[in-house]
Amino acid sequence: MLTIKKPTLLLNTDICRSNIQAMAKKAREHKVIFRPHFKTHQSAEIGEWFREEGVTAITVSSVSMAQYFANHGWKDITIAFPVNLLEIDEINQLASYINVHLLIESEETARFLKERLTAECGFFIKIDTGYHRTGIAPSNVSLINKVLQAAESPNLQFEGFLTHSGNAYHANDREELIRIQQTATENLLRLKKHFHLHPHSIISVGDTPSCCQLPVAPGIDEIRPGNFVFFDVMQFALGSCKLEDIAVALVCPVVAIHPNRQEAIIYGGAVHLSKEQTLLPADPDPIYGLAVNWNGKSWDTFTLLGKVRSLSQEHGILSLTQAGCNLKPGELVAVLPVHSCLTANLMRKYMTLDGDKIESMNS
Amino acid sequence: MLTIKKPTLLLNTDICRSNIQAMAKKAREHKVIFRPHFKTHQSAEIGEWFREEGVTAITVSSVSMAQYFANHGWKDITIAFPVNLLEIDEINQLASYINVHLLIESEETARFLKERLTAECGFFIKIDTGYHRTGIAPSNVSLINKVLQAAESPNLQFEGFLTHSGNAYHANDREELIRIQQTATENLLRLKKHFHLHPHSIISVGDTPSCCQLPVAPGIDEIRPGNFVFFDVMQFALGSCKLEDIAVALVCPVVAIHPNRQEAIIYGGAVHLSKEQTLLPADPDPIYGLAVNWNGKSWDTFTLLGKVRSLSQEHGILSLTQAGCNLKPGELVAVLPVHSCLTANLMRKYMTLDGDKIESMNS
Repeated sequence: MLTIKKPTLLLNTDICRSNIQAMAKKAREHKVIFRPHFKTHQSAEIGEWFREEGVTAITVSSVSMAQYFANHGWKDITIAFPVNLLEIDEINQLASYINVHLLIESEETARFLKERLTAECGFFIKIDTGYHRTGIAPSNVSLINKVLQAAESPNLQFEGFLTHSGNAYHANDREELIRIQQTATENLLRLKKHFHLHPHSIISVGDTPSCCQLPVAPGIDEIRPGNFVFFDVMQFALGSCKLEDIAVALVCPVVAIHPNRQEAIIYGGAVHLSKEQTLLPADPDPIYGLAVNWNGKSWDTFTLLGKVRSLSQEHGILSLTQAGCNLKPGELVAVLPVHSCLTANLMRKYMTLDGDKIESMNS
Repeated sequence: MLTIKKPTLLLNTDICRSNIQAMAKKAREHKVIFRPHFKTHQSAEIGEWFREEGVTAITVSSVSMAQYFANHGWKDITIAFPVNLLEIDEINQLASYINVHLLIESEETARFLKERLTAECGFFIKIDTGYHRTGIAPSNVSLINKVLQAAESPNLQFEGFLTHSGNAYHANDREELIRIQQTATENLLRLKKHFHLHPHSIISVGDTPSCCQLPVAPGIDEIRPGNFVFFDVMQFALGSCKLEDIAVALVCPVVAIHPNRQEAIIYGGAVHLSKEQTLLPADPDPIYGLAVNWNGKSWDTFTLLGKVRSLSQEHGILSLTQAGCNLKPGELVAVLPVHSCLTANLMRKYMTLDGDKIESMNS
């Protein structure tokens, strides 16, 4: 039995390793580079489980995260975020001893890097294939040309086109997800063909829903999913995983029960789970997590005890199922988070089912 | 000029101290106990600024936070959260050397405490005056009686009735806010009168909107606002403060510009600001923050540069105003957060405009 007194992020290492193995196998079968995004777990120790699957190249979302993983022996890192020009010294320092890959989407950034980089970096041109967060429209070949010209420098090696199809998270069904993947792939392949002067350029895609639910599209060279390492209720709602594939759960004390409205108050709020919400099929109201049974040693997903309907700073309100109505103050429940990346970031460390602590870069 | 390279939470100490002074003055003028909630700043150093205003009693939202502030010399702490029975040892340890006040809302919890407390604690009965998060309905006098009977013990001193009118955050106008305050006050006063056998019992209320926008209602003995120390865009939208009263801003690098859709991408996402959103008057779409000018030394609220419309883990999308359209990658903007409590919790420490670091319990 684990001694848990306050909100604690539990990690089922078997599920986690199995998720890693499944994605590594899929990448091998499709003969694509597997460059997992480490922003979800942000942990050197969990990173080692990827290494055991043969992973040598990774993706991160900040220079700080690149520094952390470089310090833990990773020598090939894509910083999948528009270059933060203010961190040029840190980028130069990193590029002096590991392989750094940057994302460029403007001439200004290309010119700045050409002038200020003191060590060789690879770079991708970030393409916006429909998410409309960042990147150059695939039709804007003239801008891509200008960026490539502005980036002509011995310190900047063009490596290809990269996209993150975040719009996959808004696909209403499998058909829409397939269309999103097809559009992205076609656009990237057209660009790769157009810019044929760069024969070693590759195409890199990333989102967990497509990587989990669909075969890797022909022509794709690299996949960069991240969230699959833990999964979460959002991925469950999207159809990327089963509930039993979710590798993390926030174990929370029950502190009050309101039988008249079938609610329980848990010690577990926005500072633990994050305010990210999602919709479940056939339920019009958003949720912040799903509470399941915690038996003192592990959680199981056989019985839903309640839905987290509301979060304040430290409180969560559980809307109880019939099975949850037996809960009492002083008992514990396991909450499957809506967005494991944000929950892991807030909680900063993990406890395994054996009671061992696993640190992250935020510990 | 401050050197800022990545998202950094700046604190304007003049504004912060002025906010503290204004609330302390209001409490003095209304002759009520000022027991500020420290969950917003979670910082021993900022706590000292309250002490300079004569504050000796505080509110916190967890046993861990009580331990932190007790370690920093606070000797009178209300833990404004339903008692977490699993932390009874920690509560006993705290109560052995400082004055601890607990919130009880069930017979089970009262019986448990009667049996397990080894040192004297004060307790309030938590009343639900309309927020429907926690607490006993004010009409449920029979349950209150049972709780008081179950709590009869030398280690449990009844101190009165306490509410948090979180529904004040949903008031559509000043009239509704007044009605919410009146309902809460009338209910608490009726209970105080009914349970006249406890002559020293007090009435304690808490929310920042009422404490800022309205006079303290006659009969109230204690106020426990917290957020006012920093304020934020949510309090601005509610009418509790002016934009220039907001004491914290997240300074963020601009990393990409998309002129065709008048958007900028900032390095500043859900792991910095939190996913809390709010609505501004006459704008149908929720925002996650307001970007204003940062001149390298301070921010000002004269010119709005953009609204944060979307957040992913590290990215924020700014919808730019005309004034914001001149922004370039490598420049900095100051983002006024929607919910300063959650932003401060995520960022864990502050930088003053003089470049000094201020630590919190999460640093």
